[in-house]
Amino acid sequence: MPERPPTSHDVARLAGVSQPTVSRALRDEAGVSEATKQAVRAAAEQLGYIPIQRGRSLSTSRSGQIAVVVHDLATPFSLEILQAADAVLHGAGQRMLVLTPDAADEALAPRLLDGSLDGAILTTTMLDSSLPQRLARRGLPFVLLNREVDDAPGDVCVVDNVAGGRLAAEELLAAGHREIAALFGPAQTSTGRDREAGFRAALAEAGVALPERRTRRGPYTFAFGRAATAALLETRPTALFCGDDVVAIGAYNALLARGASVPGDVSLIGFDDLSLAAWDVFQLTTVRGDLVRLMRTAAELLLERIAIGSGREQPPPRRVVQAVEIVRRRTVGPAPARRR
Amino acid sequence: MPERPPTSHDVARLAGVSQPTVSRALRDEAGVSEATKQAVRAAAEQLGYIPIQRGRSLSTSRSGQIAVVVHDLATPFSLEILQAADAVLHGAGQRMLVLTPDAADEALAPRLLDGSLDGAILTTTMLDSSLPQRLARRGLPFVLLNREVDDAPGDVCVVDNVAGGRLAAEELLAAGHREIAALFGPAQTSTGRDREAGFRAALAEAGVALPERRTRRGPYTFAFGRAATAALLETRPTALFCGDDVVAIGAYNALLARGASVPGDVSLIGFDDLSLAAWDVFQLTTVRGDLVRLMRTAAELLLERIAIGSGREQPPPRRVVQAVEIVRRRTVGPAPARRR
Repeated sequence: MPERPPTSHDVARLAGVSQPTVSRALRDEAGVSEATKQAVRAAAEQLGYIPIQRGRSLSTSRSGQIAVVVHDLATPFSLEILQAADAVLHGAGQRMLVLTPDAADEALAPRLLDGSLDGAILTTTMLDSSLPQRLARRGLPFVLLNREVDDAPGDVCVVDNVAGGRLAAEELLAAGHREIAALFGPAQTSTGRDREAGFRAALAEAGVALPERRTRRGPYTFAFGRAATAALLETRPTALFCGDDVVAIGAYNALLARGASVPGDVSLIGFDDLSLAAWDVFQLTTVRGDLVRLMRTAAELLLERIAIGSGREQPPPRRVVQAVEIVRRRTVGPAPARRR
Repeated sequence: MPERPPTSHDVARLAGVSQPTVSRALRDEAGVSEATKQAVRAAAEQLGYIPIQRGRSLSTSRSGQIAVVVHDLATPFSLEILQAADAVLHGAGQRMLVLTPDAADEALAPRLLDGSLDGAILTTTMLDSSLPQRLARRGLPFVLLNREVDDAPGDVCVVDNVAGGRLAAEELLAAGHREIAALFGPAQTSTGRDREAGFRAALAEAGVALPERRTRRGPYTFAFGRAATAALLETRPTALFCGDDVVAIGAYNALLARGASVPGDVSLIGFDDLSLAAWDVFQLTTVRGDLVRLMRTAAELLLERIAIGSGREQPPPRRVVQAVEIVRRRTVGPAPARRR
């Protein structure tokens, strides 16, 4: 049988105060003297007393828990998102629940609205998702991170995806590439749509064609990058834009497996600047968004809404667009002269 | 102001039953007729009613939440652990809280014992940690995954680390290597201790020395692997054992940065068989443990204890040791003839 854990009544007895005073002292409330607080803390420490989360949550109607929704856990992108979230939420005394949608985002609604969460950070939202509207109607604070929806009914933190797509195209054009291929992200995501729009706009302005046979759209996975690159190589591009770094690493592996040199035969550019982009084996040139800073901003917006609470007026939805920059490493080189 | 969410009373009114019947019907209890259950489910569906987690947790004294403690989120190892945990816990209807210890494991005790968890999966436990004892005294079900402590007061799921260290050494010896270096894991972890013990035992039996200058001990990180390899190369080993794949990938990058070929100049062997070990650029030979299966076993043991509950007698601590095997890829080759 487990040991009986000490209760607030035990602490009250040891400190010589009433039980409600223990709770108020440990919450550091203003109406309790500093001497009493010290006595209560000392007694709690001595007994190994731990305030019960469930008890606290009923009195404050907060759970101290925030969900972070990530697409799946198979990609290094999720890892970097969760790492950034863990750092900032833990620092704010919040607990992090990690949710991965089974299928459509909508199926998450019951899991997010069951009363166990103070708020949610959504990173997987499709452009046509009704989830943000459903959360907004129920008053659950949330922020859309990295992916957004049009006219979002809540806060949004994204990088400037259109500008990033443009930067990537300009980088390839400046190196003399005209035979360009692209692995875009899913069209139903804002990142896929907006990076593609920026990339295409810059090529169009330069009068460089991007024929359909040189483009693919797919999920942000290593497997998509690897398989699609093998197919695209038949169109003999000299440069390849990838919708994110994970796809670019998949592409890199496909090129290596075919004996193609990067950037000697094919230049390669990614998006996000995940930590593996800097590894010696890849040295991937990419568009940097700074996910850590983006997550910090998102958490601040969310915690502010949670602090205001549902009883008081909330600020209108905010949209933070973070600037991007090119990180030049080793995978973009001059366009090779083509043998025809 | 947010919309008022529907309550169980609304469902009761619509279905024409009492409120307690709604709860019992939605919990699929035996005393409720199938017709009533269907009527209640239809009414709940129509109203968009979601049972409140906090309410449920007070009546069953379960929270439906399990914590997974990972060392930090900067390593692909954590990603694969969480991916496996998410799959199995989500399938079992449990929610996954992710905790990363700030410093010593002990500091986690208050976060694990605050009443918000049904159980915990610990993957970071140091050999001298008192955390398992503390959790056992309080009756919180837990399982030690991957890392264990001696005489653990709870369930343990590990791979056969001693046998794995042995297999790695035998693989290098069979390829003719005698000038061997090793980057072991931390001595305060069972994985570091046991893999090292197995590795040393096999070398000793073969009469091959492992001088101190050819060994380092450090954390399971890319940065340690990369930095320590650069230093070890001065001892001119022909083969390098790494305590896990993340360290081996760091080592691979260091070798590449120095222009050393793998396995032409230096053979390399890792441990765990993380998914990136199979990438074309690495093709890392390694010792495979099957973390997914290990996590599945761990979750089953944990869920069984949670189902039994604190009121009834629990089975004694169980220790599952999973077999390991060599996965031969490209990074171990014959020992080169040495110029002296």
